[in-house]
Amino acid sequence: MVGFFQRALRLRSAVRHLCPYSSLTSTNRRPFNACSSGQFVASARKLHAGADVPKSSPAAAPERLPFSRVTEEDLAFFRKILPSGTITDPDLVASSNVDWLKSVRGSSEVLLRPQTTEEVSQILRYCNSRNLAVNPQGGNTGLVGGSVPVYDEIILSTSLMNNILTFDNISGILTCQAGCVLENLSLYLEERDHIMPLDLGAKGSCQIGGNVATNAGGLRLLRYGSLRGTVLGLEAVLADGRVLDCLATLRKDNTGYDLKQLFIGSEGTLGVITAVSVLCPRKPTSVNVVFLGCESFEQLLKTFQLCKGMLGEILSAFEFLDSECMRLLNTHLKLPNPISECPFYIVIETSGSDVAHDEQKLHNFLEEAMTSLLVTDGTVATEDSKINALWSMRERVTEALTHDGYVYKYDISLPVERIYQLVTDMRERLGDRAKSVVGYGHVGDGNLHLNITSPAKDPALLAAIEPFVFEWTASCKGSVSAEHGLGLKKRNYIYYSKPSQAVTLMGDIKAMLDPKGILNPYKTLPDNLK
Amino acid sequence: MVGFFQRALRLRSAVRHLCPYSSLTSTNRRPFNACSSGQFVASARKLHAGADVPKSSPAAAPERLPFSRVTEEDLAFFRKILPSGTITDPDLVASSNVDWLKSVRGSSEVLLRPQTTEEVSQILRYCNSRNLAVNPQGGNTGLVGGSVPVYDEIILSTSLMNNILTFDNISGILTCQAGCVLENLSLYLEERDHIMPLDLGAKGSCQIGGNVATNAGGLRLLRYGSLRGTVLGLEAVLADGRVLDCLATLRKDNTGYDLKQLFIGSEGTLGVITAVSVLCPRKPTSVNVVFLGCESFEQLLKTFQLCKGMLGEILSAFEFLDSECMRLLNTHLKLPNPISECPFYIVIETSGSDVAHDEQKLHNFLEEAMTSLLVTDGTVATEDSKINALWSMRERVTEALTHDGYVYKYDISLPVERIYQLVTDMRERLGDRAKSVVGYGHVGDGNLHLNITSPAKDPALLAAIEPFVFEWTASCKGSVSAEHGLGLKKRNYIYYSKPSQAVTLMGDIKAMLDPKGILNPYKTLPDNLK
Repeated sequence: MVGFFQRALRLRSAVRHLCPYSSLTSTNRRPFNACSSGQFVASARKLHAGADVPKSSPAAAPERLPFSRVTEEDLAFFRKILPSGTITDPDLVASSNVDWLKSVRGSSEVLLRPQTTEEVSQILRYCNSRNLAVNPQGGNTGLVGGSVPVYDEIILSTSLMNNILTFDNISGILTCQAGCVLENLSLYLEERDHIMPLDLGAKGSCQIGGNVATNAGGLRLLRYGSLRGTVLGLEAVLADGRVLDCLATLRKDNTGYDLKQLFIGSEGTLGVITAVSVLCPRKPTSVNVVFLGCESFEQLLKTFQLCKGMLGEILSAFEFLDSECMRLLNTHLKLPNPISECPFYIVIETSGSDVAHDEQKLHNFLEEAMTSLLVTDGTVATEDSKINALWSMRERVTEALTHDGYVYKYDISLPVERIYQLVTDMRERLGDRAKSVVGYGHVGDGNLHLNITSPAKDPALLAAIEPFVFEWTASCKGSVSAEHGLGLKKRNYIYYSKPSQAVTLMGDIKAMLDPKGILNPYKTLPDNLK
Repeated sequence: MVGFFQRALRLRSAVRHLCPYSSLTSTNRRPFNACSSGQFVASARKLHAGADVPKSSPAAAPERLPFSRVTEEDLAFFRKILPSGTITDPDLVASSNVDWLKSVRGSSEVLLRPQTTEEVSQILRYCNSRNLAVNPQGGNTGLVGGSVPVYDEIILSTSLMNNILTFDNISGILTCQAGCVLENLSLYLEERDHIMPLDLGAKGSCQIGGNVATNAGGLRLLRYGSLRGTVLGLEAVLADGRVLDCLATLRKDNTGYDLKQLFIGSEGTLGVITAVSVLCPRKPTSVNVVFLGCESFEQLLKTFQLCKGMLGEILSAFEFLDSECMRLLNTHLKLPNPISECPFYIVIETSGSDVAHDEQKLHNFLEEAMTSLLVTDGTVATEDSKINALWSMRERVTEALTHDGYVYKYDISLPVERIYQLVTDMRERLGDRAKSVVGYGHVGDGNLHLNITSPAKDPALLAAIEPFVFEWTASCKGSVSAEHGLGLKKRNYIYYSKPSQAVTLMGDIKAMLDPKGILNPYKTLPDNLK
């Protein structure tokens, strides 16, 4: 009992004073940035698709489809529409040919940067008539090779479509062009007493159009739900240049089929999203972050249940990382553990409208979690800089992994009680063959990020991971892509999560909206689609 | 000032003691029931479609399409599949031929009541091959003539598909067959410490499959969002009998296009929903309802803004009714006004996890609303029976209207600051020609229910209302159907809220999924669809 009371007193002391957490260096909460240009100049013009996987893997790029190749006449047309937005200098196109993970590399020679929907429409109408393939690109922060060309597709970047169109302070409805960077939108809204309903590690680079096109999840989904509910409208340009105006700013509209849903999560394969309207929540008056340690995943799940009951409507995130993640944060990013060593760590965020009430709820919850021996250590943050520092322990795991070696990334949805079993099973299966096998993610959403590193690319290791990881997931009726999408890398694994009738219907929809298949080819849908 | 303090003291007294409201008879909160059978026996076999509108109106039924007529061979086939579920007795089919409002009446002679998805699949495969039209029917509580046949379509009722399949207490995810009555699901969940994310006046009759097929909104949308976010999966049978299994129970799944969204809100025109999975919130520990009076709609809107800020995360409904609604409640249902007479009344509901915190927030809000002279009178309820009594003032307006005469119903989405202007403009426009012109609805969602009554059907009155009401709505970029859908009655008004490119695309989707057009014909899509 002495041990318990020592731990309890330590945590209680932290709770009582809502002790500001100060031992971490106050790092920028969002260190995630798209890779800088120039790095791949030498190789960008070579064909080099699906760079990280053996040719035999289902993740490898298929053969180039018989699209036309860009001619001087094509370039002349583009230059007429976009005098300063038609980029062909290989040095400038290079960074748009490679993904953030540097795992997939295309060989496009043309980057187009339109500023208006009408320009996007003209470009697509032309490309469709000429049978030229197009790779729509937002912030290029995707993790499944969906945001870069596979071969020589024309890159259509939304980066210059970055105007906020309207914001209604009464309804909280924002409309903006697709190229607005998420962090810029967040800053704009915070000045107006609102927040974006989604928040991602990549917020400094990712664009709202890309977020919607990939149905990004992120850290606030537990509280504010998915983009399928918070995106109220969108404008998209179809493959043949038709502009589809579904940019409503209404919370409810049951006049016919909800066409915008087709484009949310379709990864640029059905149309190019050019503008969106989003329902934005009020900025919470009170935000707290708690970092806790647990002895087992079972205790972590019990803590989650307790938390849902006692924090109720103020719970805005319940995230976890394991001790292997902590080791990588310590080793590669020099981030010290803010509490004592534990097998599992939890990041809980509360957001509410009353500081005293929220602190009281948090206090009661922590008391109960301690008394029940669910958590063994913890610290609380209420100030922005300290909150950011605690959050960085969760958000910078992705970055720490990139320093650990070659990374095999899996983004799995499972029934919440099963999510860590996959990590344990994988660790046991791989043994010494992997450098690190780590698990972290969104407990509240049943979303595990399983990451495996090796010193270098290792086909034998990959063969030990796949298809095991997908079969394991399918056996639990999970999803092989919870929030990252399918892109190039995961397209052929779709049958692990969707029945063939559904995939066939997806193919019908693609054929209906993009009969020539020019939009983001080789992505999302499997190669063997009938 | 004396007047203000008298009012303030009265309200303050109510607030201080959180005075249980007891002057209303404790009526059943949900009096809404589908019409009883038998009433239309005499006329049910006659062709009598779009009964309430002149033949020239866009709401009138179009000519019957060249579907096959049911033969004895067809009946023999149905009886083989559904020995006890093939109903042809006119007395028994009658109530399924007419909508709850008794405004639309079909002449179907066959009612099929399958119990399994496989049975639905066999029926549709057969009907598609025979070119027999089918009217899918849930609880038949729809308000736009979408849930009954227009001519002799076979009625395919989900009423016997009423099994709850699974409920996971950890994740709060429920799966059930489409025919489960919403109220039964609510009762089932309440015993398990959860609630349904939607609540409707029609809950005693409406079925979850119909709710999803019509993307029902209701009273909890403000808090828990729309069914597009809370429905996690569904199973649907396509027109040709193919079963589409998208019955996932995951909060996140980005493997391909989200096909389930096609069926949500498509009113049975793209497939028959046979099962759904729904994310259900925890049952709140603390629920309060406040009934307030306001002197003007401007003050009501200011109260809404104040409320969003001060009640924040515990706000679960903000509804309104005008003094004309109150008059109808008093006159036709003998429901007494729980407070003094005011031009506008507000129903606010809070739901939270801490009784003391919620009462404190409510107290602070009411103090501020009084001090700022935003509200002039009010009463608070915390006990279930009193809460239900206060809620009935809002929920029974629909019922009161049916006793006032022939009702013209409009369900409009508008920017929230404009919603009452339409009522005022309509009242002025119609003058003495209308018996009553009333406005009520979901302020929090920008959703106005505009209802106009006359002693009997009145084509001249209708001509004064339409298309004025739709043009007015379109001029504000509103929706001519916020939550009721289009069904038969509103199908031709779709262009007031959707551009022609969007409607064309809807037609393409319909043609792709139901090439013969057998599913719920004459509904949702306009007659002049190319």
